[in-house]
Amino acid sequence: MAAPSEGDTASLLPDLPGGPLQAYRARASFCWKELALFLEGEDMLRLKKSIFSALEDDPLFARSRGHELSLEKHRELTFLRCKRVLERALLRVEDMVRNPQSVLTLITCLGTYDWSLAQKCLLHLLVFGFAIYKSGSERHLEYLPKILNMEIFGCFAVTEVSHGSNAKAIRTTAHYDPATEEFILHSPDFEAAKFWVGNMGKTATHAVVFAQLYTPGGRCHGLHSFLVQIRNPKTLLPMPGVMVGDIGKKLGLNGVDNGFAMFHKVRIPRQALLNQTGDVTPEGTYVTPFKDAKQRFGESLNNLSIGRAIIVAMSVVNLKLAVSIALRFSATRRQFGPTDEEEVPVLEYQTQRWRLLPYLAAAYALDHFSKWLFLNLAEFQQGLMGTDRGTRQAELGREIHALVSGSKPLASWTAQRGIQECREACGGHGYLAVNRLGDLRNENDPNCTYEGDNNVLLQQTSGYLLGLLELRLQGGARLDSPLGTVDFLEAYPDILDQRFSRPSVAGCSESSVPLAAYEWLVCYLLRESVQKVNQEKRSGNSDFEARNNSQVYRCRSLALAFLELTVVRTFHEYVHQPSVPPPLRAVLQRLSALYALWSLNQHTALLYRGGYFSGEQAGKMIENAILDLCAQLKDDAVALVDVIAPPDFILDSPIGRADGELYKNLWTAVLQESQVLERASWWAEFSASKTHVESLKSRL
Amino acid sequence: MAAPSEGDTASLLPDLPGGPLQAYRARASFCWKELALFLEGEDMLRLKKSIFSALEDDPLFARSRGHELSLEKHRELTFLRCKRVLERALLRVEDMVRNPQSVLTLITCLGTYDWSLAQKCLLHLLVFGFAIYKSGSERHLEYLPKILNMEIFGCFAVTEVSHGSNAKAIRTTAHYDPATEEFILHSPDFEAAKFWVGNMGKTATHAVVFAQLYTPGGRCHGLHSFLVQIRNPKTLLPMPGVMVGDIGKKLGLNGVDNGFAMFHKVRIPRQALLNQTGDVTPEGTYVTPFKDAKQRFGESLNNLSIGRAIIVAMSVVNLKLAVSIALRFSATRRQFGPTDEEEVPVLEYQTQRWRLLPYLAAAYALDHFSKWLFLNLAEFQQGLMGTDRGTRQAELGREIHALVSGSKPLASWTAQRGIQECREACGGHGYLAVNRLGDLRNENDPNCTYEGDNNVLLQQTSGYLLGLLELRLQGGARLDSPLGTVDFLEAYPDILDQRFSRPSVAGCSESSVPLAAYEWLVCYLLRESVQKVNQEKRSGNSDFEARNNSQVYRCRSLALAFLELTVVRTFHEYVHQPSVPPPLRAVLQRLSALYALWSLNQHTALLYRGGYFSGEQAGKMIENAILDLCAQLKDDAVALVDVIAPPDFILDSPIGRADGELYKNLWTAVLQESQVLERASWWAEFSASKTHVESLKSRL
Repeated sequence: MAAPSEGDTASLLPDLPGGPLQAYRARASFCWKELALFLEGEDMLRLKKSIFSALEDDPLFARSRGHELSLEKHRELTFLRCKRVLERALLRVEDMVRNPQSVLTLITCLGTYDWSLAQKCLLHLLVFGFAIYKSGSERHLEYLPKILNMEIFGCFAVTEVSHGSNAKAIRTTAHYDPATEEFILHSPDFEAAKFWVGNMGKTATHAVVFAQLYTPGGRCHGLHSFLVQIRNPKTLLPMPGVMVGDIGKKLGLNGVDNGFAMFHKVRIPRQALLNQTGDVTPEGTYVTPFKDAKQRFGESLNNLSIGRAIIVAMSVVNLKLAVSIALRFSATRRQFGPTDEEEVPVLEYQTQRWRLLPYLAAAYALDHFSKWLFLNLAEFQQGLMGTDRGTRQAELGREIHALVSGSKPLASWTAQRGIQECREACGGHGYLAVNRLGDLRNENDPNCTYEGDNNVLLQQTSGYLLGLLELRLQGGARLDSPLGTVDFLEAYPDILDQRFSRPSVAGCSESSVPLAAYEWLVCYLLRESVQKVNQEKRSGNSDFEARNNSQVYRCRSLALAFLELTVVRTFHEYVHQPSVPPPLRAVLQRLSALYALWSLNQHTALLYRGGYFSGEQAGKMIENAILDLCAQLKDDAVALVDVIAPPDFILDSPIGRADGELYKNLWTAVLQESQVLERASWWAEFSASKTHVESLKSRL
Repeated sequence: MAAPSEGDTASLLPDLPGGPLQAYRARASFCWKELALFLEGEDMLRLKKSIFSALEDDPLFARSRGHELSLEKHRELTFLRCKRVLERALLRVEDMVRNPQSVLTLITCLGTYDWSLAQKCLLHLLVFGFAIYKSGSERHLEYLPKILNMEIFGCFAVTEVSHGSNAKAIRTTAHYDPATEEFILHSPDFEAAKFWVGNMGKTATHAVVFAQLYTPGGRCHGLHSFLVQIRNPKTLLPMPGVMVGDIGKKLGLNGVDNGFAMFHKVRIPRQALLNQTGDVTPEGTYVTPFKDAKQRFGESLNNLSIGRAIIVAMSVVNLKLAVSIALRFSATRRQFGPTDEEEVPVLEYQTQRWRLLPYLAAAYALDHFSKWLFLNLAEFQQGLMGTDRGTRQAELGREIHALVSGSKPLASWTAQRGIQECREACGGHGYLAVNRLGDLRNENDPNCTYEGDNNVLLQQTSGYLLGLLELRLQGGARLDSPLGTVDFLEAYPDILDQRFSRPSVAGCSESSVPLAAYEWLVCYLLRESVQKVNQEKRSGNSDFEARNNSQVYRCRSLALAFLELTVVRTFHEYVHQPSVPPPLRAVLQRLSALYALWSLNQHTALLYRGGYFSGEQAGKMIENAILDLCAQLKDDAVALVDVIAPPDFILDSPIGRADGELYKNLWTAVLQESQVLERASWWAEFSASKTHVESLKSRL
C-alpha cells in the first residue's frame, strides 16, 4: 500500500482522519491515493480541489445548519451563489475551450455541492448560452459576454403545459410581419403556455423560445427558436404582453425557479430569430440551407445531446455520493453479532454487501463511461462547428445520439435505484434529512424524465440498432460504427449460435464472461425485436403502431441491454489496459466483473429462454460469482469510497463523514438545528379548549 | 353496466363528473359502483364517507394552497388536527371494539388525507395506548380515558441512536431502588439516547420507554417497558432529568415530531413498570409468569405485529393513490399519434399500460390481502386477550408473525416502486409538488425500514418455513397451519417434480397457472435455502453465520416468493368465489391473473434454472399473457380507479381529479400558489454589485 511518489499529491489528496473506519482502511488491497490519481489525473484533481476549496472558503456557500430555507430564500440564495460562481470565474473561458471536460467537471463539482446551484448555472451558461451560440449567427454573438457577466440571465423554453416529449407539436406561434420587420409571438391558450422552464420563474430576463414560424400567407415552417426578452433586467418586471410566473414547489431542486410564460402578441425584432437552420428575409421569405425539414428539425434539437450527456454525469455523481454515505455508514454501524456481547459492522452481512457493493461498482463503471461519452461528444461537436459534415461525421452523430439516448435512462435509473437502496440500507438514519440521501433522491429524480423521458429516449437507441441491421440485411456495407460499439453485430448469426460454457465460479469472476453473454443477449433481443416489428406490420399495423407494440420485452429491453453491454465493455477494456498500475489491477478488475455480472443477472431469464444458458449450474455460477466478488470487495469498500467521496464539507452528511464517527457527527448535527430543545411556540394549544373531548369520557 | 339497485348507494357513491375521462368510463366492462359495493360493503363505504366528509367540511382540514408550511407550522397544524379528530370522535370506542377493521379504516382514511395526521393519531392512540392496555395491568387502566381525551399525549420509545433492529441490545437502564420503591431510569451516554420516537419531539407528555430492568444486586432481567412522564402537560416543558428534543427534518411526514430523549437518573414509581410480562415486588424481587426469558421477550414485542399489519394497509393506500393519479393522467394526457394532427392518450401506448396496470392490479390484490391479514390478526389478538393459549393459538401466532413479517416488505416495496413508476409516468407534471406523488413517495418510504427493516423482517418468514420443513423431515406431524398458507408444502417433493405445460397464451391468462408455478417456486427456493444453510453448517460456520450467508438468492427470495404466492392465492380464491356478481367476474379475474403473472415473471430465471420451464415458449407465453391482460384491462382502468380513488378533496392532486380536466386543474392550482406572478422580493440583487464580473469581459 505504498503511496504514489508524486511530490504534491499530498496537498491534492490529504490524508484522511483516523477513527472507526481505520480498521477497513488498513485492510484495503490498494492505496486509495494511487487509484484517485490514476482515474482522475493530476490536472483534474487540482481543478476539483480548487472548486471545492473556493466553495468551502466562501461564507455565501456555508451549509445552512439550524434554519429551514423557505422557497423564496432558497431561490435567492441559489441565485446569489450562481452569480458568485460567475464572478469568481471558477473556470476560465480559455480552459473551457481548451478542455471541454473541464466544463463537465465544473458542473459536476457544483452539483456535488448542491444540484440547484449547478442546474441554475448550467441552464444559464450552457443551455441558454450554448443555444444562442449554436443556433444563432454572428448577429447574436453580442449576447455572449452579457451572459458571462450576467447583464442578462437566460432560460430555454421548449416544453408547454400540454406538450413535452412530442416537441414537434408545440403550439406557440411566431408570425412574421414584414410591415414592421417583426415576429409576433403568441400563445393561443394556456395549454400552450411555456411550462417547466428552469430559471424562468423569477430570474430570467431572456428566453430562447421555441415556436412555429409562419411567413406571410400563412405558411408554417415548423419549429424555430427565438431570443426573447421577458423581463426588464433593472427591475425584474415582465415585459409588456408577457405573463410570466413561477410553477411552484417541486419534489426537489427548489433553488431553481421553474416557470411558465404566456405571450400575448408580443412583438420581437426579425433578428431575434436564431437563424442557423433557417431565416426570414426582411420581405418575409423563408430561406434555409437544409433541403429536408426533418433534417433541419433534428439539427435544431441537436443541442439536447449535450444536455443528456451531462445528465449521465449528474446521475453518476448522485450514485457516487449515495454509496459513499451508505458504505461509510455500513462500515461503522454495528448491529447484532455472533454473541450478545459482540456486534459487527453491518457491512459484514452478506445482504448488506450485496445491496450496496454492486452500486459501488456501477458508480465506477458508469463514471468511466460517462467521461468517455462526453469526450467523444465534445469531439463530435467540435467537428460540427468546423462544419465537418462528411459521412464519418454523420455516422458518428447517429452513434453518439443512440448512446446518449440509451445511457441517460441507464444512468439515471441506476442512480435512482441505487440511492433508494442506500437510503434504506441506512435505516431510519437514512430517512433523516440532514444525512442528504433524500435530497440526492429528489434531485436525481428528474434525470429520469427531463430532456427526454427515459422510455421514449430508449426508442432512439433501439431504432438505431434496428436500422443498422436492416441496412446490413439489405446487403449494405459491413456493420461497424466510428466508436466501434456495434461492430460485434457483424458476427450476429454466429453469436446467436454461441452457448455459455464455463467450468467454475472463479472463471465467472471476470468481466469477459458476462461480456460474451451480453453480446449474445443483444443479438437475441435484436432478433426478437425485428421479428416482432415485422409481425406487427404483417398483421396490418402502421409503422407507428408496429413500433409502439414492440417496445415492452423487445425494443425497450434491447436498448437497455445494448447500453449495459457498452458500459461493461468500455470499463472492461479500461481496467485491462497495460497502463493500469499493477497494484490497482485486482480491485479494478473485480469492480468491472461485479458490475458486469450483476447487470447481466437481470437478464438470466432470457439467457435460459434463448438457450444460451442451460442446466442449473449456469445461473448458480453467476449468483455465486456475484456473492464472491462482494465478499472480496468488502475490505476494499471503504478505500474505494475514499477515492470517489468529495471532502466532508461538500459531501455534507453526518453519517458519511470521513472520520467515521457516525454517532458523534449525527448527534452534533441534530443539536445544531434550531429550537431543538425548545418547547413548541404553540405549547398553550395543548391544554386549550378541551371541552368537546370531555364528552367522550361518558362513553367509555 | 346497470347500477346496483340498492336505494341509498346513490348518496354513498355519487355520480362522477363528466369530462375527458368519459370516453374511457363509457367503455368499461362493469359498473364501478357495483364493484365498490362488492369490495367494501355498505357499512364500510358509509364509515369512509363520514370520515372524508368530516374532514372536507371542517376548515381546519382545508388544503394549504398558496403558502408553504414551515416545520413548526406543519407540526402545529398536525397536532391541532389530531386533537380535532379525537374531539370529533370520528370513530366511537364501541365501534372499535365491535369491529376492529373500522380502526384500520379510520387510520387509512386519515392517511389517505395526510399521513402525518394519521401517524400522529396512530402513535398516540394505538401504539402508545395499546402498549399500555396490552403490556400493563389494572393499575394502568386509569391512563386510557386520559389518552382518549388527550389529558396526556403519548409516544413509544424503543429505538436508540445506536440500536434499532437489534432491540435486545438496547442500553437504557432501569435500576430498582427498594428504599424509595422507585426505578432509576438512565441513559448511559448519547448513543443510548432514545431516538426517532414519533410524537416525542415536541408534543408527548408521556412515553412508554423500553429499558433493561435491574433488581438490587445488579441482576439484569432484560428489556421491559415503563410508563414515564417526560413533559408537564400544562407547560409542555420537560420533566427534571429528562433532556428531550426534536430530531429535525425528515424526508417526509414532517407533521410528526420525531424526537430523542436522554434520561439522567430519572426516578419513576415502581408502578410505572408495565408489568404484564414481569413485575418487581416492593422489596425488589423480580416475578414473571413466563419461565422462558425468550418467550417473555417475544411477548413484549408482540405488539409490533399490529404495527406491521397496519403498515401493509398504509402501503396499499399509497399505491392506490399513486395509480389513481397516474392512470387518470394517462387517460387524459395526449402525446404523439398516428398522424401529426391526431394525438392519442398515453394510456393507449403499450409501454405506459405495462408500466401502470400491473400496479393497479397489485393495489387490488394487496388490498384484499391486507384486509384478510388484519382480520385474522385481530381475531388472534382477541384470542390472546381471552387468554386462549392453546396449541392452535400458538401455531396461529407463528403463522401470522411469518405473514406479517413478509407482507410488510412485499407491500411497502411494491408501493415504493409503484409510486416511483407513477411519478415517472406523469413526466414533469409528476415532479410538481402540488400533484402529490412526491409526498406519497416520501411518506411511504419509512414503511420500508421502520417497525423492522424489510430485509431483517424477511428472515422471520424464511425462518418459519425452514423450521416447519425441518420438523416435518424429522418425522413430525402433517405440514399444515391454521390459516392454511403452508399446507401445500405437504406435497413438497411431488410439487418439485411438476413441470409447466400450457398450450396457449389464453390458457396462461388466469391466475391458476401462475399459482401452480408459484407453489413450485416456493418449494424450489425452500430446498435451495435448506441446502445452503446445511452446507454452511457443514463447513464449520456457526448458526449465526450460516443464517447470514444463506440470505441472498435463497432465504430472502424464499420469503418474498412465499408472500407473493399467499397474496396471489388469497386474491385468486376471492375473485373465484361464487358470491362474486357475474358482471364483475371477468375484470376481477383479469386483475388477479395480471398481478400473479407479473409478480411471477420476476422469477422466470429460477423457473428455467430449476427445470419448471423449458423451451422458448414458456417464458414468451408469460410475457405475452401480461401484455394481453394489460390490453384487455386498458378500457377498464379508469373505472377501476373510480372504485379505489377517494373524493377529489382527499386525493388532492390536480392531475388526478375525477373530472379529468388535467390542464385546467393544473393551471388553476399553479395560479393559486402565493406570489406566482410577483417579482422576487430580492429583485434588486439582480443588478447589484457586478464589478467583479466586468473583469471577465477582457478575457473573451
